[in-house]
Amino acid sequence: MTTTAATARYARWDGVGNPFRLVDAPLPARPGPGEVLVRVDLATVCGSDLHTTRGHRSSPVPGVLGHEQVGRVVAVGAPVGRHSAAGEPGVGDPAGGPRHVDGTPVRVGDRIVWSVAASCGRCPRCRRGLPQKCTDLRKYGHEPLDEARPLTGGFASHCLLAPGTPTVVVPDAVPDLVAAPASCATATVAAVLDAAGPLGPGDRVLVVGAGMLGVTAVAMAARAGAEVVVADPHTGRRERALQFGAAAAVGSPAAGAFDVALELSGAPDGVRTCLDSLDVGATAVLAGSVSPGPAVELDPERLVRGLHTVVGVHNYAPRHLAAAVEFLAAEHDRFPFAGLTGGPWALDELDAAFAAAGAPGAAPRQAVRP
Amino acid sequence: MTTTAATARYARWDGVGNPFRLVDAPLPARPGPGEVLVRVDLATVCGSDLHTTRGHRSSPVPGVLGHEQVGRVVAVGAPVGRHSAAGEPGVGDPAGGPRHVDGTPVRVGDRIVWSVAASCGRCPRCRRGLPQKCTDLRKYGHEPLDEARPLTGGFASHCLLAPGTPTVVVPDAVPDLVAAPASCATATVAAVLDAAGPLGPGDRVLVVGAGMLGVTAVAMAARAGAEVVVADPHTGRRERALQFGAAAAVGSPAAGAFDVALELSGAPDGVRTCLDSLDVGATAVLAGSVSPGPAVELDPERLVRGLHTVVGVHNYAPRHLAAAVEFLAAEHDRFPFAGLTGGPWALDELDAAFAAAGAPGAAPRQAVRP
Repeated sequence: MTTTAATARYARWDGVGNPFRLVDAPLPARPGPGEVLVRVDLATVCGSDLHTTRGHRSSPVPGVLGHEQVGRVVAVGAPVGRHSAAGEPGVGDPAGGPRHVDGTPVRVGDRIVWSVAASCGRCPRCRRGLPQKCTDLRKYGHEPLDEARPLTGGFASHCLLAPGTPTVVVPDAVPDLVAAPASCATATVAAVLDAAGPLGPGDRVLVVGAGMLGVTAVAMAARAGAEVVVADPHTGRRERALQFGAAAAVGSPAAGAFDVALELSGAPDGVRTCLDSLDVGATAVLAGSVSPGPAVELDPERLVRGLHTVVGVHNYAPRHLAAAVEFLAAEHDRFPFAGLTGGPWALDELDAAFAAAGAPGAAPRQAVRP
Repeated sequence: MTTTAATARYARWDGVGNPFRLVDAPLPARPGPGEVLVRVDLATVCGSDLHTTRGHRSSPVPGVLGHEQVGRVVAVGAPVGRHSAAGEPGVGDPAGGPRHVDGTPVRVGDRIVWSVAASCGRCPRCRRGLPQKCTDLRKYGHEPLDEARPLTGGFASHCLLAPGTPTVVVPDAVPDLVAAPASCATATVAAVLDAAGPLGPGDRVLVVGAGMLGVTAVAMAARAGAEVVVADPHTGRRERALQFGAAAAVGSPAAGAFDVALELSGAPDGVRTCLDSLDVGATAVLAGSVSPGPAVELDPERLVRGLHTVVGVHNYAPRHLAAAVEFLAAEHDRFPFAGLTGGPWALDELDAAFAAAGAPGAAPRQAVRP
């Protein structure tokens, strides 16, 4: 256990149309049992942060946004009781305090990323192996502001991690602006690839949407040896995807020509494209559709006769965060991940960072250095 | 190798509205390499046979229908060459002649069921583990009549199995009218359960449609320890399903309340019911939709946020035929499978058998004893 005595600062979000406001708050004198206090070194503006500030995604008001970040552990809470939330494997250890996903103890000075959410480890969903759908899920950057415990988002100098938050150590070689998206984009794509099943040479993979998740998926599938085609309506995005290992980048992919299709655009047309693209025995993984939208027509006979599988992915399990960091550590030099992020902006420039993130033709991410 | 010298008889189908015609044909003097000649002891009229004779399913004309049957091997062909179709594991053996799915040699006198289809073992789909979608698939009861080789359907005294036809020995304790549907209904349900993933106590399973496949699925899922609810609009079918281990039989199941939903009705409403029934992390397996029908609305956001999986199943792999026979051998006494089949009818009563199969409130199957 470590104690600290200083001041934290967070960017308070007051709803659509309001500027961010910086608020000072005392740092916790010491983290509570099972908690981890992290100094945020760099956070990135995720597409869903942008959806929130534009009113396209409901989020509590006021709140502290941001859920893609990398930082250093500055204090570690005491072990939690044997009956606490941190009993699940790889997350906490009643005997010895918080542990990373790989089982090693969390130590002051560790450079880490953490999951988008903390799980209770006890509810029926956690027990069924779905911690990402915990009935008591607490999502970073997505909780109502509690002024007594405000450090729950990435757009802040510090973040106080709740017991049950999966954490992974990031090698120093991975730059901050490459590491930060691991917490959301990269880990989600790792979950998408996991749902698609093992990929290898000879597998024909379609990636729909060449944004942050799309190019990450292209790179992961290419790394596995698959032949990857990326589909996106925008020329610039298609060209970018070619730098991440896509064999081809197209506007409209061939129907019935893929073993795996990954929907990362969130557009109804993207879902249709994925379903249409499936060859016999193929799998579509849908992950982009996280906002209400029109229904998509499903032809049951085609799905049945084609032995198609359609899988939804939302959030991710702790192992996917570990897979994301492993991937970035191994491949960040091979593909131009660093070029995906604009900025950095200071915390008091957060409005400008969001404006830049939402500008036409913007980089997929904007970095914020609190 | 064995030779035979006698006459076979088959029921020739001449298209919608025409009666079946019995035709005598010489029995093959000896089966060709890799072939197996079987005497059909009992065949059942499958729902898809009925769809064919009613014009709801396209099938070559003229032809020999029937693909659910049990019989005895009367002659076994010579081994096929090393480069022939029978090289795939469990189907044939270049060195020693045809083999059953379990690897044992096919012998004269074996009481067997065989797959709905023979696969080539060489095409890309066979090599990818999808023999049921072989690009050269030959389906029993579904091929154009070749008068030189007419014994390709179950409504005949004999059937000549092509190389690459999965076969499974049936224990004598399983009655003919329980064993015959193994070739189609039971093996398809085994494939459906396989696609759903392992089931056990605590799993909430919805079966939509209480016909032949539905009650078989109820029994298989109940055997695994799952809590099974069956949905069917017809009271009599619901009552029947309760005899096969369903905990409850309903008209409209609760939405969002199941871990697994199995669509075996083929009705668009059944597909909708299955999709709506899924709890977080749940899987729907669709197998009933084998005819053209209206599209069903899919809500991508619900699928994504719910971590739903939707899988199509059509035909089945050799292991599913083995699983079907194992299931019937173990459980045919526990559930009233024998009561599902009316008849038996003689081969020259096939028109009457089809009329009985299509009558309102009919038993799910009618038996034919050639």
